[in-house]
Amino acid sequence: MTASKQSRPRGSGRGRRVTIADIAGRAGVTSAAVSLAVNGRPGVSDATRARIVAIAEEMQWEPSPAARALAGAPVLTIGMVLARPAEVLGTEAFFGAFVAGLQEVLSRRDYSLQMKIVDSTEAEIDTFRRWLAQRRVDGVVVVDLRQDDPRIPALEELGLPALVIGGPGHHGALPSVYVDDAHATRLLVDHLGERGHRSIARVAGNEDFLHILVRDRAFTERCTELGITPVVQDAGFGTRGAGIATAELLAREDAPHAIIFDSDEMALAGIHVVEEAGLRIPEDIAIASYEDSALTRTHRPPITSIGRSAIEYGRVAAARLLEVIEDSRDGRAASAKTPPESRAIEPVLVVRGSTDPDAPEAEGYLRHSALSEEGSEVRVRQESC
Amino acid sequence: MTASKQSRPRGSGRGRRVTIADIAGRAGVTSAAVSLAVNGRPGVSDATRARIVAIAEEMQWEPSPAARALAGAPVLTIGMVLARPAEVLGTEAFFGAFVAGLQEVLSRRDYSLQMKIVDSTEAEIDTFRRWLAQRRVDGVVVVDLRQDDPRIPALEELGLPALVIGGPGHHGALPSVYVDDAHATRLLVDHLGERGHRSIARVAGNEDFLHILVRDRAFTERCTELGITPVVQDAGFGTRGAGIATAELLAREDAPHAIIFDSDEMALAGIHVVEEAGLRIPEDIAIASYEDSALTRTHRPPITSIGRSAIEYGRVAAARLLEVIEDSRDGRAASAKTPPESRAIEPVLVVRGSTDPDAPEAEGYLRHSALSEEGSEVRVRQESC
Repeated sequence: MTASKQSRPRGSGRGRRVTIADIAGRAGVTSAAVSLAVNGRPGVSDATRARIVAIAEEMQWEPSPAARALAGAPVLTIGMVLARPAEVLGTEAFFGAFVAGLQEVLSRRDYSLQMKIVDSTEAEIDTFRRWLAQRRVDGVVVVDLRQDDPRIPALEELGLPALVIGGPGHHGALPSVYVDDAHATRLLVDHLGERGHRSIARVAGNEDFLHILVRDRAFTERCTELGITPVVQDAGFGTRGAGIATAELLAREDAPHAIIFDSDEMALAGIHVVEEAGLRIPEDIAIASYEDSALTRTHRPPITSIGRSAIEYGRVAAARLLEVIEDSRDGRAASAKTPPESRAIEPVLVVRGSTDPDAPEAEGYLRHSALSEEGSEVRVRQESC
Repeated sequence: MTASKQSRPRGSGRGRRVTIADIAGRAGVTSAAVSLAVNGRPGVSDATRARIVAIAEEMQWEPSPAARALAGAPVLTIGMVLARPAEVLGTEAFFGAFVAGLQEVLSRRDYSLQMKIVDSTEAEIDTFRRWLAQRRVDGVVVVDLRQDDPRIPALEELGLPALVIGGPGHHGALPSVYVDDAHATRLLVDHLGERGHRSIARVAGNEDFLHILVRDRAFTERCTELGITPVVQDAGFGTRGAGIATAELLAREDAPHAIIFDSDEMALAGIHVVEEAGLRIPEDIAIASYEDSALTRTHRPPITSIGRSAIEYGRVAAARLLEVIEDSRDGRAASAKTPPESRAIEPVLVVRGSTDPDAPEAEGYLRHSALSEEGSEVRVRQESC
């Protein structure tokens, strides 16, 4: 590397990075001397070091990504890949709130979030591989967990710090954070049971996702325990399927008088079918949703929902991933012998007018389980599984 | 650099990047030979080159970011900084839809989006500087344009490819894309004027933002042209201010019978005040919003709004920024003498039950201006300004 003898004023060389050679040229020393000075290694006098560092700062020099990577410095970025259509970011309340929660914690730590949309699980794994090879991210958040998810063994092998969103189970040796959907399901069923419903329907989303399966099982189990007849109607994610599923439920001879929907948008689609059939909410039919949002709060009547977990979910996930990254940097990565660690976010139920005509407007009232602390909306439980 | 003599099987060295030396060790050649081979330079036989490249691929080697940067290769990432609370990502319909539109176009081109939340304009400029110095992004999207925005001269000086979201004007020598808010305002005022309103109020958001000022001016101007009395009530962004502003409007002796809100959430907050006052929509008071969303479509009555521009805005912005990046790479960056180029997205008005009791439910009906092509929801107009 030859030291340039030209002084390079700030702002010139549009878009070009300041190099060690540029600093050497300005300081009138060799590139080797600059390298020793900025890396804090012996071989230059204190006076020369101070002068070189001052020039480097004035020229806004930054070490190259490769140099930072060699030094093991964090790149202050976490990654998230979505193998879903981009439009879910704009239409699904969950993703907007989850990303907001992530960013809230990341921004306090000067981290940014790198997001990529891909069209397959293979492309997602390939992205993880490239991000690791190019040192683009310090760690990744893995969303939309499935059973036998091929991303889990791929990430275990890569050794890229990762946090799985979902569980319990199915996250291999990787740490995970999940909303306790079995618990959420019991809150919903118990509330509707207490309101006197002896038959409850569940309009269920895409069963490829683990959390949908968890809800399916917990729903049937809890209904059976309470002597309630469970009816599961598959709809896939999306509003069209939810509308059709609702129409099918209403057409049954033994049509249930309470329906739980997997998302806020699905609940709205179902409600339109209910209203077209001339039925009143909650007098003729009670409606509840697993996802709370501005839609459920502003609807009239407001819709009983599992409390605003998505933003808190994002916060907890970001904080946990930053811990995982720090542990990895300090060589405290979990070995294959450590049981994988999982943290559950405990949900609350916000009861509103769509199931209880006496509930206060949009605020509703809260139903915790016996496990939750009084007054705290979300409680994090740590466990091994 | 000394070639390691150890073979390094795939998947070992958790998280460590494969280097030229690793490949050299496996191939039994010098690092220099590997460098010639993988960079397609002469000096090795075709057979050796083929063998080295095969080993590099098998070991999943990737050139270091510094090497890629020196070669001018794109890092396939665009950046966006938000100097706003993270929660706007979860609560403002505009941001979710805008990011979805960006991602839709970026994903087709294998790009990712790097987002960072900061707490000041200075921190935003500092982030641009660091992203450029570290070659983190190929270009940036600049949102929330203000008058005399300090980010504009900073980006001009840095020479980082950038696209400004907002205008017309105030974007210096940088290219910009904006929704024609003056045009949107005329669509709203004209529609309410045709419905017979002789006094129209505007509940206005944070006037620090350029698009709010554009709306303010166009509103007063168009009302005056049509002989309508304009009333502007400042609310700041956010729902609390919008509720208070609405209450103040209703308390006036000459209370207007039509109110336009700057966002969907502000409209909802205003509607709650209107309903509490026992007024009917649209019989007693007409309500319209600049932002369309699931909230405006699912409300009863559905709310007349400027059509879903945010997702299209994101798409147009991503496509335009990728052009700007390519131009910059090809040395076709705009010189100081080229007039800055601006593209306007023309809005449409979706008329619904909150202003016209005969409008079909959520779909409403469209009002274009004479300038728009029939049947196309969004038309992009190119201009110099």
